[in-house]
Formats: sequence, structure tokens, C-alpha cells
Amino acid sequence: MAFQYLTNVPLEKARDEYIQLLLDSGFSAKTEIIPVERSCGRVSAKAVYAAICAPHYPASAMDGIALSAAATFGAGETSPVTLEEGQFTVVDTGDPIPDGCDAVIMIEDVVRQSDGKVKLFAPAAPWQHIRQIGEDICAGEMILPSHSRISPAAIGSMLAGGVLEVEVIRPIVVGLIPTGDEIVPPTDNPKAGDIIEFNSSIFSSMLKEWGAESICFPIVPDKKELLAAAVKEAVEKCDAVVLNAGSSAGREDFSASVIAEQGGVLYHGIAIRPGKPAILGYCGHKPILGVPGYPVSGIIVMEEFMKPLIDRWYCRCGAAAEYAEATLSRSVVSGLKYREFVRVRMGSVGGKLMATPLNRGSGVVSSFMKADGIIEIPQGLEGYEAGSKVNVKLLRPRQELDNTLVAIGSHDPLLDELNDMLHLSYPDSFMSSSHVGSMGGIMAVRRGETHIAGVHLLDEADGSYNTAFIKRYFPKGGVRLVECVGRTQGLMLQKGNPLGISSVSDLTKEGLRYVNRQKGSGTRILIDYLCKTQGIDSAKIYGYEREEFTHTSVAAQIASGTADAGMGIYSAAKLYDLDFLPVCIEQYDLLIPDYAWDSPIVRRLMDTLQSEDFKKRIGALGGYEISNPGKVRERF
Amino acid sequence: MAFQYLTNVPLEKARDEYIQLLLDSGFSAKTEIIPVERSCGRVSAKAVYAAICAPHYPASAMDGIALSAAATFGAGETSPVTLEEGQFTVVDTGDPIPDGCDAVIMIEDVVRQSDGKVKLFAPAAPWQHIRQIGEDICAGEMILPSHSRISPAAIGSMLAGGVLEVEVIRPIVVGLIPTGDEIVPPTDNPKAGDIIEFNSSIFSSMLKEWGAESICFPIVPDKKELLAAAVKEAVEKCDAVVLNAGSSAGREDFSASVIAEQGGVLYHGIAIRPGKPAILGYCGHKPILGVPGYPVSGIIVMEEFMKPLIDRWYCRCGAAAEYAEATLSRSVVSGLKYREFVRVRMGSVGGKLMATPLNRGSGVVSSFMKADGIIEIPQGLEGYEAGSKVNVKLLRPRQELDNTLVAIGSHDPLLDELNDMLHLSYPDSFMSSSHVGSMGGIMAVRRGETHIAGVHLLDEADGSYNTAFIKRYFPKGGVRLVECVGRTQGLMLQKGNPLGISSVSDLTKEGLRYVNRQKGSGTRILIDYLCKTQGIDSAKIYGYEREEFTHTSVAAQIASGTADAGMGIYSAAKLYDLDFLPVCIEQYDLLIPDYAWDSPIVRRLMDTLQSEDFKKRIGALGGYEISNPGKVRERF
Repeated sequence: MAFQYLTNVPLEKARDEYIQLLLDSGFSAKTEIIPVERSCGRVSAKAVYAAICAPHYPASAMDGIALSAAATFGAGETSPVTLEEGQFTVVDTGDPIPDGCDAVIMIEDVVRQSDGKVKLFAPAAPWQHIRQIGEDICAGEMILPSHSRISPAAIGSMLAGGVLEVEVIRPIVVGLIPTGDEIVPPTDNPKAGDIIEFNSSIFSSMLKEWGAESICFPIVPDKKELLAAAVKEAVEKCDAVVLNAGSSAGREDFSASVIAEQGGVLYHGIAIRPGKPAILGYCGHKPILGVPGYPVSGIIVMEEFMKPLIDRWYCRCGAAAEYAEATLSRSVVSGLKYREFVRVRMGSVGGKLMATPLNRGSGVVSSFMKADGIIEIPQGLEGYEAGSKVNVKLLRPRQELDNTLVAIGSHDPLLDELNDMLHLSYPDSFMSSSHVGSMGGIMAVRRGETHIAGVHLLDEADGSYNTAFIKRYFPKGGVRLVECVGRTQGLMLQKGNPLGISSVSDLTKEGLRYVNRQKGSGTRILIDYLCKTQGIDSAKIYGYEREEFTHTSVAAQIASGTADAGMGIYSAAKLYDLDFLPVCIEQYDLLIPDYAWDSPIVRRLMDTLQSEDFKKRIGALGGYEISNPGKVRERF
Repeated sequence: MAFQYLTNVPLEKARDEYIQLLLDSGFSAKTEIIPVERSCGRVSAKAVYAAICAPHYPASAMDGIALSAAATFGAGETSPVTLEEGQFTVVDTGDPIPDGCDAVIMIEDVVRQSDGKVKLFAPAAPWQHIRQIGEDICAGEMILPSHSRISPAAIGSMLAGGVLEVEVIRPIVVGLIPTGDEIVPPTDNPKAGDIIEFNSSIFSSMLKEWGAESICFPIVPDKKELLAAAVKEAVEKCDAVVLNAGSSAGREDFSASVIAEQGGVLYHGIAIRPGKPAILGYCGHKPILGVPGYPVSGIIVMEEFMKPLIDRWYCRCGAAAEYAEATLSRSVVSGLKYREFVRVRMGSVGGKLMATPLNRGSGVVSSFMKADGIIEIPQGLEGYEAGSKVNVKLLRPRQELDNTLVAIGSHDPLLDELNDMLHLSYPDSFMSSSHVGSMGGIMAVRRGETHIAGVHLLDEADGSYNTAFIKRYFPKGGVRLVECVGRTQGLMLQKGNPLGISSVSDLTKEGLRYVNRQKGSGTRILIDYLCKTQGIDSAKIYGYEREEFTHTSVAAQIASGTADAGMGIYSAAKLYDLDFLPVCIEQYDLLIPDYAWDSPIVRRLMDTLQSEDFKKRIGALGGYEISNPGKVRERF
């Protein structure tokens, strides 16, 4: 087939053709013979037959005496039979039945006489209380069919059947080649422009979970001849090769042509996002997969192309993914040209399964870690509206989702600590937070999509917190406002305050670069309010439209020197060792709807909030006033 | 707490008290620090926080030019802005943003002039097309809470966040001590009375699947001081110890007293079957579990007591078992004193999930391998009637059960070969056979419990096969009779025919030991018929009441010398190298009810039956006449 450069082939078509091409070229499992004891979890290459019977001798199934049943015929209550020594043998459970014997009588039914003889009051049926040869397994019987996963019990059965070695499918070995001049090994001190090479670690871990082995080759710089040599070596040593990065059509793209020279390229470009620039290459029967450098794209391409090949190798059907119907809490828009995979956080609120789209940046690897599920937007569809029912492929067991506390609202690092404390106390409880600002939290509560919402909304009329907003948005009530913490808001500033900022009005200074929070966040409302009351024209603050979604990310921008000031909480400034100009203490509370109040997960949260441990851990973050966390301030 | 000898404590009570006692004594996870790359599947010991931001520098999100957004303000369609070299920098995706720049313009929107200047027709917003610092992860953010299973994406997130090492829970090490004078290491040539020690292999495989490591100690003979020394050594080296065998109150039982001397015994004897003689012992905070020697009992005791401890060690909730409601195809009787665990084979026939109890012998390890599920009969209940709805704990995914062909009826080794061929051709298809004889198969079809039934029923009136029985039992029709094979039935005899048997009438000879098949099997009907037509009094055949359930097990008894003759098929005689006296060729057919006929799994079976491969493989077994397997003989 001809090499098709940057095609836009539908996923199924590309995958089916790729697998077929490889199978036709001879892609198939290799086998090895290993000791049965070490075969747990492996896949049998052939049917396994028993070599011996189990049990391999007739054995007593009781403690008692073994004898010839014929010698007892005629025995009865009134006509006992007496047997001499030599006519019977005392046996324990598991003992072999002596020659000439074909029955066992339980010790309880034997009357021993002082002269060594025994008296029996009932006849024995031939073969009673004897474990017959082959009761468990007969020699020659098939113990295990071909292509079966070997379980602990199968190991026992094989050993019982005298099978000491078993031919199994040997692990497929996948070579991973990271490429790129800018790529550096994992470090905690990277230079600007360095891209930390963690994809190999992700991929080799995925491969391990799929039962494959991996060889990670050294990072190859963007030099065609070096790349060609690396691919050649990997093809020789491995059953499949993954070439990471360099698979887009950018400046430094040699991957496709290098692969084409080694063998061939079926397609370069698949109609999926993320993952479009995948290269489906091969050298004979060995797949050479070109995987995009962005981790999220790479993970999806590995899932969609490498995993089915590995399943083929092990002659297994991939376990069917679990799907569930969920309600989308935000709309997602998609391009018409691709099938798009969108990662979502999930939670079950009041019996309703919710899915909230995560950051879709293909460089955002943490979104994959946080993802509870994936929705697919088919090619040709523009996306889904908020409130739509969507079919979600679950990445975590449904049971865990049902035990997950959903927190949608204002960001505070204390939510992560709460999550940790909750899970430490209740190992089957989890927490999923989405940071959409206080107003977003109120809306989520109104729509029945969250158990709790962190809120800190300043009423511009009187400077009070939260109550006015709740009355406005919940005129019929149905919610509780639960005390959490007081926290110090202020201006985070470069260490040493080099621009000499001493008030909010200084933010308009020439050359000062501000970084703001998103609209709808309580912190944004606060700075808007401060500007208004102090007569500051926010249009004159450079960077006022530059929006970040968390206190921590605002602090990170300032710490890195790309901004000079931003409004946020003290604990974030402390984390980044920034200067801090306190402005006010605000009330950060939890809004909890009645529909969630009595749920076990909210009960557990309340216990955690009220614990001494909470006070200690949150106190250590700095900038918090903690009096009665978990106390209901007011019921609406 | 006092040592209670051979108690009969309910399972939950015993388990709860045992775990609590160990926790109170200090049973808890130990941790270790390992490289993040190798942490896949491990459990975090503490919350993990990011050391650096990811990205750690502002990076271009596009191929284009980086510049100061301010320099573009005012640009428009009719008023382009021209920038000199030095006012912008060409950047590729991922490149760092140079100092002084705060926006990127896509290369498509840049008009390059021949003099090196560029022309722009639209202004740039500050920070457009720039991946901000910390977009993925902010330094100081919690990446992973405590006690989380580390996924491939979590590894990527940690490495992206500059975390190179992680503190995880180290594997729990469980010592396995096999004991008993009669125990021998796995062998294919055991002596009579030898018991093959495969429990350690089963247990260490189970432990591996639960994430634990195991140390298998050498077999300890039944000498108290040796056992005490072995337990002492294992307690020193391991986090938990399993003492296998010797846990019943029999002759050679030192286990309980040895454990008691090391520390203590909470209970000896649990109200479960199999598994009653379990010993819940300890030495300080280390569990010492006495596990019965019979493999099935041992597996259940490991599942019920060791697994919950291991889950505690790893601070995880055991995955909740999947349950399903099924119809019991045979009644099961249980003692009132115990909670009984009964292993069942399962299959989904016509949308109805069926459960068929397997051999309940606690020595029958193969039953655990064959088991698809487990039903529990609570203490105080006498059992369940056939046809009852029972709640089954599934041991295989529900999806596999739905793809399982159920075969209930007459035994023939070709069924195992068919199973193998079916699964080789269709990796998602499985087959589950129960050998209950031809009449049992007819009854299962009538009750709607099986897809197919192997039948070979001789009509005593005219010597024809199957048709007469089907007409009698299916007066309204609703079934098809599908041709399978002709097979040679005859007398299997000791090698060399030492007793000189030349006809069925010779079976009454003095000293000849016969082994029969169970009532209701086609082979039993055949021998009954032969005796009747030849005027032989079957009461005079010694061993006529000794019943085996398969051709293979009849052959195994003769081969082992515990019987001299038995009726069966040629392939079984051939397998055991026995002499064979052919008696007749009978028709072994498959009865397939209409309710199963169109199901995909039966279609696949038909394809397999009609394949050349079937003829080849079954032909190789010997004694079969194969003309048109898979052909519908008659529809009723």
C-alpha cells in the first residue's frame, strides 16, 4: 500500500487495515516453556493435558479401617461381622488403600475389641469412603484449553495432574524511542525550553499493565541518520517499536520518512483528536508506531493502536470497557473533521451521574490522571450541549464513582488536603474538585450537579459574605451554608516587592504586569469591588484580562517573573515564597444542598471538617482563621 | 483472648475480631522510597506534591512568532503594523517565549517581507497562544493523595511536576510453610500415598495477584520441634505466615499448639465449609494463619482471611465482588452448622443465567479452576432446590459468561477438543461442559438450561439411536438433532487381557472387577441393554454398582489396576493404552433446542463442527467415524 502523508483516515478503518496488514505479514505470538509454578497470569500457548491422575492412587477419604467390602457382606445390627487382624488396615484420611481392599469404614463405626479384632454392625459398599483415582483429574484429560489465562487454581490443577512445565505466550517486547533535541531525562531542575521526557515512563507503565515488556532506548536527537539507526536497532531487538514525538508535520519531522525507509507507512494522520499525527508504520510483521509527543495524544494513540496489537499477541479479547450514561455539566465543542476524545471528571450526585470536561490541552498530562471517564464526540458532530446525556467510557470502577464527593466551586488548596484526609479515614471515599469559581459553584448546586460548593462571595452592598448571594440564587431555600475557614486575601508580589507596591491603586503603575483570576471567581469579584470602591480604572491595569483559574497558578506566574502582582490567598503566596500585602479576611464557606446533605459521603466530609486533624493540617498552610469548621451557619 | 480449640465461630465475627486484634497489635503497612518510573501499580504512602511547575516556562503553543503584544496594538485590516527584525522571534511549538515577549502570532497570520520585516493585520492579545507556566501542574499542588494506586498518567504527572522519587507501601511478604510427612514436591511420578505439594504454588500465585510477595519455605515433616523452628524463622523474615496442612484435629496436628506457643491463637475452627479447621493465630502484630491441607479449603481460607489483611496492608478496599442472580440447575444440600461455599459453572442460555454446582470435594482443585462463580448457603439453611434463584459471586466477567456455550449431557473427550477449537477461532467464546449423561442432557434441554446436549441413547426396541427418546421427551418438538460422530463402544480391559475376556457374558467371571458408568448415561443404558438381551444377570457382575462419570475415569480405574473391565469408547482405552473389545458403533449426536439454535455461540459451534480441523483433530483421537458433523439429521 502506498504511503499516505498526513491523511485523515477514520479510526476504525485505519486500525482494522493496520492490524490486518501486520497479521498478513506474520505478526503473531511467540511462545516459551516455563515452570508451572511461575505461570500465574500467563496465557497458555496450547491445550494442556494431564500427565497423571489426581489422586494418583485410591486414597482413604476418612480416618478408619480399610478392608475388602466382600468380607463385610451380611453384617447387621443383630449379626455383626468380626474381622481378625490382617483382614483390615488402619488408615488415615489420604492414606493409600492397601492391595486387596476396596472399602473404608469410618473409625466411629468400628468397635475395637481388646484382642485386636474389630466388630462391624453394617456391611460396607465396595469403594465407599475411598477417593477414586482421577476423582479430581484423569490422565489425558484436557486441563486447560489453548489461549487461557492461567489462574492460581489452574496452576494447582496442572501440578496435581503431573504437569510441571507449560508452554505459554512469551511477553511481547516493545521498544520505546524518545526523540527530539529539546527532550531531557526527568529532572527537578529543567532549563527553559527543556521538555521533560516522561512519555517513556507513561508508555512503559501502560505496556506493563497490558502484560507487555518494554525496552526504553536513549533519547535520539533530531538527526535523521541517528533516528534511522535507533529504529533499526529497536526493530531487531523488539517485537514492536514506538517512536515518540516528531510525528507532526513540523520542522523537525523525520519520523515518517525514517519509518518508511525501514519498511513502510500505512497511514500518517488519523481523524482523531488528540492523536491526529499518528504514524502507522511497519517493518515486515513488526509494527512501528509513530506516536505524537504531547502526552495526552500519545496515550490515546497507544490505547487505540498498540493495545489492540498486544491483545492480538496474547490471543485475547480486550476486556470490554465499562460505559455509563452521564449528564454533561458543561458544553463541549468539537471540530467536525475529527473524532474527539474528551476526558471528564465524574461523580454521582443524588443518583445522577455527572460528567465535567477536563482541560483538553493535549500537553496536560494531569488531566489524564484526574480523568474518571472519556466521552467521544463522533466525526461530523459539533459537540454536546451542557445537560446532554452522554455515553462515558469509565476509567474507574463505577463503585468508586458512586463513593466520590463532588466539589464544584471556588478553588482553595485546602480542598486537596480535605480529599487526602477523607480518603485516609475512609479508604473507599474519594473526592473530585472542579475549580470554576464561586458563582460556578452556586450554579452547579442549582443544577443538582455537586455535593458541595466552595464559595466566598462578597456582597458589594454591605461587605458581607455569601448570604446575600445565596438568598438571591436560592429564593426557595434548599441549601445550607457551612462554615469552613476565614482566609486572608491580598496582593501577591514578587519577592522583596521590587516595584514598591503598597496598595491596590499602585496596580496601575507603568510597567507593572498584573495577573488576574477568571470572571465569576470570588477573588475576581473582590478585585473588581476594590477597584470600584477605590475609583481605580481596571482598564489601566496591564494584564487585567490575563486569567488564571487557581490561586496557585496566579502565584506561579508571579514567582516565574512573567507577572508582578495578582490577588490571591496567603497560603498560595507562602507556597511560592512571595511577598504578600494583606487586603482583607474573607469567609470561605461550603454551600451544601439539601439533596446531598444526608448522603454518607457528605456525612463523612462533615466528620473530617470537624476533626482536630483538619485544624492542624490547614493551620500549617498559613493564612487561615479556623474557628468552627463544619458548623452550619444558616439553613436557607 | 483465650485459645479456643475447634470452635465453630461465624465467619464475619472471626474475621472482624482477628483483624481488630492484629491492628491493635500494630499490623500496618511499611513503606519504601522508589523511583517514580518504577512505581506503576504501587500505592502512595503519603500525598505527593509537585516540586516544579509544568510547563516550567512559558512556551509557545503554536509555530509562529513571539513578540510583545503591546507592539501590535492598533493593527487592523486596513492599518497593518510592521515589525522589524529584533522586535519578534520565530518560535516553534514548545519553544520558550523570549524575555520581553508576551504573545505568539500563528505563522499563518504573519506576512513576511523580503527585507526580513513582518506585517500584521490584527492585534495580539497579551498571552495569546502561550502555554502558561503551570497550565498542567503548579509547584506545590497536590498531585496524588495518600494511599492512591499509581497509574501511568500519575507517573507522567509526577515526572512533569519534578517528582523523581515517591514513597510507596512496600509489598507485604507472606511466608508459606507446607507441612506433612506425606507431602512431596511437584512430580509427574509420585508414589502411592505421596501427596503432591501444589498448595504453595496456588497460594503464592493468589498472593501475587493480590500484590503480595511470598517466600515458600521447604516442606516441614510432622515433627513439632521442626515445625516450631520453621514458624519462628518465617515470623522473623515475613510480615505474615501461612502454615499449610495439619490444621484439622487429626493425628498429626501440631499446628495449633505450635502457633499458640509462638504468640496466640484466636480461633481454631470457623463455621464455614470448606475451610472449617482454619487457625487464626498471631505473633505480636504478625498474622500466622493455619490453612487446611485440602486445596479447596485452603483457597477459601486464604480468600476469607488473608486477602482482607492484605487489603488492609495496602490501605485499599477490596474490589467489590460482582454478583448476579442465576437459576440453580441442580439442588444443593448443606449442613445446618456451617456456611457453605459451593462452586458453580455458569452459562447464559436464552437470556437466563444458569448455575450448576460442581464437585464439592474439598480435594478437587480442578473444580476451582472450572468454577465461574460461588454460591453461599448461609448457616442454618439446608440448601437450595433445583430451579431456585440464587445470588452468585462471579469469578469471571459477566461478559465472558454471556459468551459461553453451555453443554450439558453425555461425556465425550471430543467436547474438550471442541472447546479448544472454538476458543482458538473465536477468542471471546468459551464452552462449559457438564457431564450428566445423555438423559441428564435431555432434561437440561427441556428445562431450557443448555445450548447443546451430547446424546447417544439406544432405543432398546429397535437398536436405533436418539430419535425414539427425542420423540418421547419432546412430543411438541422444538429441537434439532445434529450429527456429530459415530464412535466405537466396547469393553476396556487390562493391557494384554490377562483375564481372557472375549464377550460381555465373561463379565460375571469369578474375581473380575467391573467398573460402571452412572445411571442415566448412554453407556450405562448400553451395558444394561446388552446384559438384558444376552440374558446376563448384572447383579452377578462384581462392581456393577461402582459408578464413574466419564469414559476417561473408567479407563483410569482399569489402568491403575483397581478394576479389570469397564464399558467405554475406544478413544479412552487408547489414551490409557488398554485392551479394547469393540461391541458396537453408536451415534453420538448433539441435541440443540430451537431457543438456542440461532444464538451466535451456537452458530460458531456449527462452523467449528463443520471445519476440516474438527475432522482432523477428532480423527486423531481414534475410534471415531466422522462423516457429516454439523449436519441437521432431523428437526422435531
